[in-house]
Amino acid sequence: MPSYSAPTKDLQFVLHDVLNITNTDVPGYSELEPDFTSAILEEAGKIATEVVHPLNVVGDTEGCVLENGVVRTPTGFKAAFEQMKEGGWTGLDMPEQYGGQNMPSVIGTAVGEMFSSANQAFVMYQGLTHGAASAILAHGTDAQKDTYLPKMVACDWTGTMNLTEPHCGTDLGLMRTKADPQGDGSYKVTGQKIFISSGEHDMADNIIHLVLAKIPGGPDGIKGVSLFIVPKFIVNADGTLGARNGVSCGKIEEKMGIHGNSTCVMNYDEATGWLLGEEHKGMRAMFTMMNEARLGVGMQGLAQAEAAYQNALEYAKDRLQGRDVTGVKNPDGPADPLIVHPDIRRNLMDQKSFTEGARAFLLWGATMIDQAHRNGDKDADGLVSLLTPVIKGFLTDQGYDMTVQAQQIYGGHGYIEEWGMSQYTRDARIAMIYEGANGVQALDLVGRKLAQDGGKHVMAFFELVKSFCKENGGQDDAYDTAFIEPLKSASKDLQAAGMYFMQNGMKNPNNALSGSYDFMHMFGHVCLGLMWARMAKAAKSAIDAGSSDAAFYETKITTGRYYMARQLPATALHLSRIQSGADTVMALDAANF
Amino acid sequence: MPSYSAPTKDLQFVLHDVLNITNTDVPGYSELEPDFTSAILEEAGKIATEVVHPLNVVGDTEGCVLENGVVRTPTGFKAAFEQMKEGGWTGLDMPEQYGGQNMPSVIGTAVGEMFSSANQAFVMYQGLTHGAASAILAHGTDAQKDTYLPKMVACDWTGTMNLTEPHCGTDLGLMRTKADPQGDGSYKVTGQKIFISSGEHDMADNIIHLVLAKIPGGPDGIKGVSLFIVPKFIVNADGTLGARNGVSCGKIEEKMGIHGNSTCVMNYDEATGWLLGEEHKGMRAMFTMMNEARLGVGMQGLAQAEAAYQNALEYAKDRLQGRDVTGVKNPDGPADPLIVHPDIRRNLMDQKSFTEGARAFLLWGATMIDQAHRNGDKDADGLVSLLTPVIKGFLTDQGYDMTVQAQQIYGGHGYIEEWGMSQYTRDARIAMIYEGANGVQALDLVGRKLAQDGGKHVMAFFELVKSFCKENGGQDDAYDTAFIEPLKSASKDLQAAGMYFMQNGMKNPNNALSGSYDFMHMFGHVCLGLMWARMAKAAKSAIDAGSSDAAFYETKITTGRYYMARQLPATALHLSRIQSGADTVMALDAANF
Repeated sequence: MPSYSAPTKDLQFVLHDVLNITNTDVPGYSELEPDFTSAILEEAGKIATEVVHPLNVVGDTEGCVLENGVVRTPTGFKAAFEQMKEGGWTGLDMPEQYGGQNMPSVIGTAVGEMFSSANQAFVMYQGLTHGAASAILAHGTDAQKDTYLPKMVACDWTGTMNLTEPHCGTDLGLMRTKADPQGDGSYKVTGQKIFISSGEHDMADNIIHLVLAKIPGGPDGIKGVSLFIVPKFIVNADGTLGARNGVSCGKIEEKMGIHGNSTCVMNYDEATGWLLGEEHKGMRAMFTMMNEARLGVGMQGLAQAEAAYQNALEYAKDRLQGRDVTGVKNPDGPADPLIVHPDIRRNLMDQKSFTEGARAFLLWGATMIDQAHRNGDKDADGLVSLLTPVIKGFLTDQGYDMTVQAQQIYGGHGYIEEWGMSQYTRDARIAMIYEGANGVQALDLVGRKLAQDGGKHVMAFFELVKSFCKENGGQDDAYDTAFIEPLKSASKDLQAAGMYFMQNGMKNPNNALSGSYDFMHMFGHVCLGLMWARMAKAAKSAIDAGSSDAAFYETKITTGRYYMARQLPATALHLSRIQSGADTVMALDAANF
Repeated sequence: MPSYSAPTKDLQFVLHDVLNITNTDVPGYSELEPDFTSAILEEAGKIATEVVHPLNVVGDTEGCVLENGVVRTPTGFKAAFEQMKEGGWTGLDMPEQYGGQNMPSVIGTAVGEMFSSANQAFVMYQGLTHGAASAILAHGTDAQKDTYLPKMVACDWTGTMNLTEPHCGTDLGLMRTKADPQGDGSYKVTGQKIFISSGEHDMADNIIHLVLAKIPGGPDGIKGVSLFIVPKFIVNADGTLGARNGVSCGKIEEKMGIHGNSTCVMNYDEATGWLLGEEHKGMRAMFTMMNEARLGVGMQGLAQAEAAYQNALEYAKDRLQGRDVTGVKNPDGPADPLIVHPDIRRNLMDQKSFTEGARAFLLWGATMIDQAHRNGDKDADGLVSLLTPVIKGFLTDQGYDMTVQAQQIYGGHGYIEEWGMSQYTRDARIAMIYEGANGVQALDLVGRKLAQDGGKHVMAFFELVKSFCKENGGQDDAYDTAFIEPLKSASKDLQAAGMYFMQNGMKNPNNALSGSYDFMHMFGHVCLGLMWARMAKAAKSAIDAGSSDAAFYETKITTGRYYMARQLPATALHLSRIQSGADTVMALDAANF
């Protein structure tokens, strides 16, 4: 069975050495001293490794079962869920007013990575609840907040997001679910929703469904979509649970992975619902959940890659096979461990340099969210909004690839279920799809975010890279060669791609959209390049300051050098694809495919 | 449920327009007139689509079951196997002397692709038999051939390859299975073998296991390994089946995919076996099977990608979602089909340009095998030996990626098992692992094949590209720009990588081996680039000659232009990684990972 250990030291390195969070002027950050965050991370890591992780294979093997309308989660899930609740982990970054601990997003993200690595399917029950609670927090009336949030923050009640219908996913304007006003402030919601994660299960007293539906007579398409709160059990005025609502689980999908999470077909049959936010402004409210969810999904890409990597590394150290061509390394054994072989190392270094870079990228993103939410910083809000599709799309694509690479280290043992490596790839696969398939993320990035506020945020990103290079270059040749120069070069490629879009996208938007996926990936590489340049700088400073843990910091620099030398040059390939334009992409008639 | 249609027109295009097989001086090729090969391909395509393909999902869902030592294959497998046998498909390219039809390998490969697309797990029962029969054909005594081959060619008896043991896969020198000589020409074979595809099942009267084992007292390591024929039932002198041998299936592995094939733990307990080939020369004999098997596995990469692509394409044409940004394409419908969107097309064109290029590459490889076997052409033998790891490694890596891309087109529907797209990725995943994991293919290519015969074969490859460019360039600017120039540039990258290995691999072999995986991929791209340049040339000729099917040929040229513009430039990225050397790959101590 796979193992998992909490990467608390690496998390601490990013929080303190790299992001230097206590020196940031965000309310709440000054309390986040290393000892304090260490205590949180160690405690969360303990629950993740000891309580949540052992259920990962169980969830995959048993799956969820629907019987007589009741969904049974895998053995042990309910007890573990109770432990997460009792520890207060479900409301970590939620307001104290509703029973949360009011921690910044950067802490929620660090903790979230560990839970997600430990058991993605399991933690989704809490994750969806968090998203639904955030939407109620942002758009609900005071009465709605008081009714639902305390229970949801505690995960006594869980939440869901209901968007997709059989005939529409990305294009929600085609939606058919309708909500008829009853004149008393309530609506009757009728329709079918599919792919509803955690839609029905046995771990909570109530399930609060957030459902997109159309109010008859409203505008056509996406502009006529509203968001409704549809609880499984109607909540009485005194907070107790009343009648069962007209919502039921019609089916649990058989999926490639995340078997421990119940992915439901939900049937709404004149279910009573209440408007959340304004009529016909449902997408706006839903986007509160979606943006948060997209960052959370990007985190899943990292989290599965990290868990898979840890196991691949152990296997590469343990498994004896072949001899080091440059000289025997394990003379007392029948063979050397896999890790002596250059191609195994290439594989492991790909994984290691990705996961550590991705972790820094995510936590940096979380600091921007805190800047935006706690400091009202509009620039930070704009930048993280620009980077959200990059975090979602790039980290899940790369994260998936890394689980495949980790599986490859095991040879045939990676393909059989016994070793658990197949589960990492099967679970990681969904992250490229849900919360907006990665092609949609690329479209969001190039078709919307690039030009947002007159292109201000992408210019700010380039400026940020430029000033980093200016401030940190020219002092150390080795650092310049290994980090500053490759970063400059990759950033130049990214700018050239943006320039190409501006010059050619006007006359034909397909010239931009044909390159959107490549742009998302090159943007991701530049971000990880920037993160590695920052991490290397922080490591260098620690070594220069005489750290007693020089080997740790040297390893950071070496791993960063790998990323800059072996991964970052991908920007040139993406640029050349982008610059080839829409011509070959769009040339064929559909009939000639 | 997914559909599959036989790509006979594309196969004919490669066989006749591109490879021009009837004009090749290989015995048997002159008979392969278009009408004749068309008849074969149509008939095979019919069996593949109507008989074999419908069992693909059945095999995945039911899997194989071991009960009381008997393995039950999925419903319908046995009847379909009988139909393949009756049609003579199992011995298509086997000698007439043993009941085969003596068709060249190029026909076997074309037919094999279709069967493999239709149902990889199913066709493996025949595929392993073919490999085992080839080894007996090459290394068996006349008596062994007469005893086993007629039954194996007919697939009345099937075959297996037994290499892997729990503690060793790649490094077979660590093998523990032993074979004690009994003085009567027979041996007692004892040990455990794992991951034995088709190891036990209910579709054949006998199973002929080819087993690697060590004869006590022989040389240590790989040089002391011999190959044995160990039949499930001992064959009497009159050809009837005698006693049950001491071999049994201990377990069927739970796998990520290819559930329809029984992957067995095989226990040998003083099983009676007979030496195949010479004592201690087992690896040589096994390599007859392995080289053939590696090409067959490369074919699986293409085959799964092709099947997945066909379905993704249909879905992209059918599913209505969103509107074309350049103008509505389906005004009568609620939305436009997915295929109007540039990023969906990018995805589909990746798949299409890969599968068609890979098909040409494989069939070209098969003609070299025919040249080598039927004409005794040592140069062809050397070249296909060089290209075998490229075909295996590149086509299975890329083939897998393409199944993932095909799945992505479906969004959430690609993740649930109902649509069948998950099975393509789960099945395709194994091809990157078995018959030598792809990292081992890269090692074989760079560590062995490049320098074989003094580097003669890689030089021949470069010369072949060069002379193609010389003969076909300079006549048509559009063709030069789209095909000749990119091919020259990619080939130059490949040569530069080879040069880097020569200059830096001497002082430190890790400088070469750290780049082996990238080299394998860049080599694959150059081969597909060459194939597309040849296909475009053939298409151009057909158009110039006034073909009535100009749209078909124009589509080939357009698809080729896509590959050259969007995929081939990957060689530059691979080169830059290779030229970064072993430094960052090997820098970390194992303890510091």
